[in-house]
Order: sequence, then structure tokens, then C-alpha cells
Amino acid sequence: MGENIIINIGRQFGSGGRIIGEKLAEKLGFSFYDKELISIASKESGLGREFFEKADEKTSYGIFGGLLGFRSSVIADEFMNNYLSNETLFKIQSDVIRELAAKSSSVFVGRCADYILRENRQCFNIFVVAPVEDRIERVSQRQKMSRQSVEDLLEKTDKKRSAYYNYYTNKIWGAAESYHLCLDSSFLGIDKSVDLICRIVAERFGKS
Amino acid sequence: MGENIIINIGRQFGSGGRIIGEKLAEKLGFSFYDKELISIASKESGLGREFFEKADEKTSYGIFGGLLGFRSSVIADEFMNNYLSNETLFKIQSDVIRELAAKSSSVFVGRCADYILRENRQCFNIFVVAPVEDRIERVSQRQKMSRQSVEDLLEKTDKKRSAYYNYYTNKIWGAAESYHLCLDSSFLGIDKSVDLICRIVAERFGKS
Repeated sequence: MGENIIINIGRQFGSGGRIIGEKLAEKLGFSFYDKELISIASKESGLGREFFEKADEKTSYGIFGGLLGFRSSVIADEFMNNYLSNETLFKIQSDVIRELAAKSSSVFVGRCADYILRENRQCFNIFVVAPVEDRIERVSQRQKMSRQSVEDLLEKTDKKRSAYYNYYTNKIWGAAESYHLCLDSSFLGIDKSVDLICRIVAERFGKS
Repeated sequence: MGENIIINIGRQFGSGGRIIGEKLAEKLGFSFYDKELISIASKESGLGREFFEKADEKTSYGIFGGLLGFRSSVIADEFMNNYLSNETLFKIQSDVIRELAAKSSSVFVGRCADYILRENRQCFNIFVVAPVEDRIERVSQRQKMSRQSVEDLLEKTDKKRSAYYNYYTNKIWGAAESYHLCLDSSFLGIDKSVDLICRIVAERFGKS
């Protein structure tokens, strides 16, 4: 891990946390990983290594051998979702996140990356919020739904994120004390928030 | 209130939030009010106006008339603490905070000022945290106590602050979504945190 700078971003649904992460990564020349990218990487790396290697070792794992041809396919997806416990999935994702963090300076969005990488000395853990009206507005722009449905989706998604985070870490999702910086993205707007975070990275890690 | 800029700071005990507020006020040329200053102002203004004026109006309030000579004295203090309900005290403090905010650009530390001044359009609400070890260290430097006593004091004080805030506001103390900015003061250190907040004030309100 050594010299890599790692920015971990937690966020309320619709707060703009993901786009802040993307713009940050672009501006700083860091790699960017959100939930989907971590999930893909886990399927390619984690599932491959942890399960298919086992299948190779032990011929009694005939059923796994049979699955080899389906790597990275829809069936591998189904296998991930149906047959692996959440704990195992979390463990695979954690290994993948650690590997990615060791490879290059990165921005991770979600997936408890702040907790998984807590031993990394150059972590900057951020949580992004926004007033509920702005979040509804942002989500409405990308999804055609009734206002009530958007409100429900906000609440449901944040409940899921909170439950996931609080289960897998020893910290509380969205609590100021769990992060180095929490930011209302509407206070300065997305772009100035990105600038602000870049300045803090420069201050703290000497990278501009 | 109009043009005044108001910075409200909540903070974990021992996080350095108060000193950040003081330095901010000095740097920006703002007035500074912490819990004690608000309390003094409330006694001088609130108690005087709300209670002693009543005593003047109605002669049947003989007992209050007798207290007039004790304004701002130890007995007035006792009167505040023993005979006014917490709700009344909160109301007096709220009036005083609004008056102070209308007078000049200010930094308020604690006392739910962020909530009390929620209608003010130029508010910047901040919450300061720090790792527990740094908070113990900071408190130990100013108070001669055993480590265990300091730990107990941290917990007790933050519980009180949290209960007070959660009771009087519709927000949650220390939750990222209750503030525009939450900051771990150990991440950049006190002085660079002050600089950062000044830059945000300049960005947002055009004041440098």
C-alpha cells in the first residue's frame, strides 16, 4: 500500500457523492471504483481465485469444475448472489478493495472501503450529504418516478446502506465521528466541493 | 439579520471545536460567543427584560421587585438555575442569540444556535470531531484528572450535549446531515482547519 492515497466516500442516496468521487478521481488522476466496479472486480478476481482455484485443487469439487466455463457470465452472477453468504461476499470484496488500493491511488465509493482500508495510513474518509429536496431533485432527473416513489427510494436505499455499514464496521454510517470530513454538497455545489477536497488532499498529503 | 454571516459550531468535548471557533472569529473579525458568554448575555438581557420588567408592571409581583437589586449577582444566578424551567431558559437564550446574530457577523459555539438561527440565510453550520485519543490528550492538558476520569467526562459531556440538542431541535447531534460541514480537527490540525473554514466562508459568502 505504501504511498498510495486513498479517498473513501460514503454518501446519502442522491447527495451527489458518487459524482464528486468521479470528478475527484479525474482531477487527481486516481483510479475510481464504485459499488458496481468493485462488484465486477470481485467476480473476476475473488470468485476466480477463491472458488475456481479450489475447484481445480480438489477433484471432488466436481460441481465447481463444471462451473469454470461460466466465469464472468450470468451464471457466475447468479452463483455469487445465490450461493455465497453475505459474509463471504464481503470478504471477497474486502480482498479486492485491498488489492486495488495497493495498486494505485484510488477513490472508492461505498462498500465500507473506509473500514476495510483502516490500516492504510493515507486514507481520507468522506461522507456526502445534501438537503432532502436537493436529493429528490437529483434522483428525479435520472429516474422517471413519482415524487412519492423517489422519497421512498431515498429512505429505503439509505436504510440499506446504513444497515450494511453498521453491520460490517465498528462505526456508525453518517455519524460525523466516523469520517474525517462530512460535506453538504449543496452548500458549495458539486464542483467547488471537489475543489475543496482536492485542496485538503494537497494540505494533508502534499499532492496537488 | 440581513447581511451578517453566522458560523455555528457544534463539537465533541475535547475536539478543539471551541478554539477553532475563537480563532475563526479572530481571523474573520466576527464576534465570538460560547456557552458561557451566551449565558451571561441571557442573564443580563433576558432575565432583566422578561422577568424584571414583569415585576415592574405588576405590583403583585412583590417578590420579583425584591430581587431587582440582585440583578447579575449570585442570587440572580441561583434564581436562573432554580426557578426558571429549562424551556424558559432556552427561550431566553434563543432570543439573546437572535439579537446577537442581528447585531454583527458572529461565531456561536453550542447552545443549538444552528437551530435557533435556522431562518438566517447566511448560516454556516459546522460540527467538529476528533479521535478519542486526541480528545483525551487535549482535555488532560487543561484538567488534572486521571485518564479514567477524563474518559468518563468525555462520555458524560457528549451525552449531555447530545440530549440537549436532540431535545430542542428537530435534528440529531453529531449526525452529518445536521450540518453543512463536519471536520476531524486532527486530520489537518487546528490552524489549517481554521484556514479551511475561512476559505469556505469566502467561497460561499464572498468574504475573505
